[in-house]
Amino acid sequence: MATVKVYGPPMSTAVSRVLACLIEKDVDFQLINVDMSKGQHKSPDFLKIQPFGQVPAFQDENITLFESRAICRYVAEKHARRGNNGLFGNNLLEKASIEQWLEAESQSFNPPSASLVFQLAFAPRMKLKQDHGVITQNKEKLGKVLDVYESRLGKSRYLAGPEFSLADLSHLPNTQYLVFNTDAETAGLFKSRKNVNRWWGEISGRKSWKKVVEMQKTPPPPPA
Amino acid sequence: MATVKVYGPPMSTAVSRVLACLIEKDVDFQLINVDMSKGQHKSPDFLKIQPFGQVPAFQDENITLFESRAICRYVAEKHARRGNNGLFGNNLLEKASIEQWLEAESQSFNPPSASLVFQLAFAPRMKLKQDHGVITQNKEKLGKVLDVYESRLGKSRYLAGPEFSLADLSHLPNTQYLVFNTDAETAGLFKSRKNVNRWWGEISGRKSWKKVVEMQKTPPPPPA
Repeated sequence: MATVKVYGPPMSTAVSRVLACLIEKDVDFQLINVDMSKGQHKSPDFLKIQPFGQVPAFQDENITLFESRAICRYVAEKHARRGNNGLFGNNLLEKASIEQWLEAESQSFNPPSASLVFQLAFAPRMKLKQDHGVITQNKEKLGKVLDVYESRLGKSRYLAGPEFSLADLSHLPNTQYLVFNTDAETAGLFKSRKNVNRWWGEISGRKSWKKVVEMQKTPPPPPA
Repeated sequence: MATVKVYGPPMSTAVSRVLACLIEKDVDFQLINVDMSKGQHKSPDFLKIQPFGQVPAFQDENITLFESRAICRYVAEKHARRGNNGLFGNNLLEKASIEQWLEAESQSFNPPSASLVFQLAFAPRMKLKQDHGVITQNKEKLGKVLDVYESRLGKSRYLAGPEFSLADLSHLPNTQYLVFNTDAETAGLFKSRKNVNRWWGEISGRKSWKKVVEMQKTPPPPPA
């Protein structure tokens, strides 16, 4: 099996989503750094493989892809029987439930989460001004989403059913920042909800995610 | 084949996305109105099938689903050989390209588009105040996304390749409002780009979409 290539820094939430998926599926990969502080994601060469100038980009033998959730689906479908083979379900109905909660992540959970990660974790590092109106509004939105999750996770061990799936995995990158790198009130949105807190403990304790968190702490390699 | 049920008004962009998919796949459906002006989408019975209180919800023999793009994937996968059988691709690589552009729709195209549809088409009908800062900002964002589409559609007839797919279909609901129910500047974002304008003409001219637009003009049935 040829080694796949992932372009982008592991500290990016979208890059780390793809890394978690590759590790769950036991697929070897080469990580190629894209120095966003130097604008490498907007360079003509990078725009050829990622026309929106975002990370990650991904290369396998016959295909180049962008969009983290599309890359995860491709990896999980191509390697259905490799590594964690329930990650994308084993039949049409299991897969439909995973898709439903993966879309809930993408459409309901991600918008307020990504906004809070930017405002509370990245803006201070980048010395950008925080928008307190945006922060308050998105904490409220995220709380409402987590109320739905709290109810669901009272009936089901994981979002899509009894097994860990791509739907749970997709929540790891933003939640990692929200629980550990924002403020007590934001972390409390997860910790104060019994079932959400139990679920977060289970999914963040997976070996695959611990490896990704280690990669996030490792400085990027020097330019080739 | 049992008739599937779709809950929600066709004028909702997410509901109309599912309707277009069902018609492309030649799957019979029963449309059940949800009167959002009366808050029926927040009623306890509806929340049992759609816990976020949004439309659409969907029922097939063995499953209840929400999230329009998840429903479309389920329908296209279950009925792979029915109706338009290239809608979700015919192999792993075709499907990966469709997923990539379906995610581009969901992550890059939809946020500014949905915001403009709300501000320019729905807010005036609902007698809500428009936010001109939000409108300006999202026109600019949408223009940048359409620059990427313009380049892609100069090399490829449809977004994911030579055939119409779920990726194109998913753009129909917002674009219909943006071209016909907003303002000249917003419609111009599509019309002024040669390849985007050619593509919009092709995808909006499909029989399936014309049927959905007809359904949007038909008043909802009286309550049962």
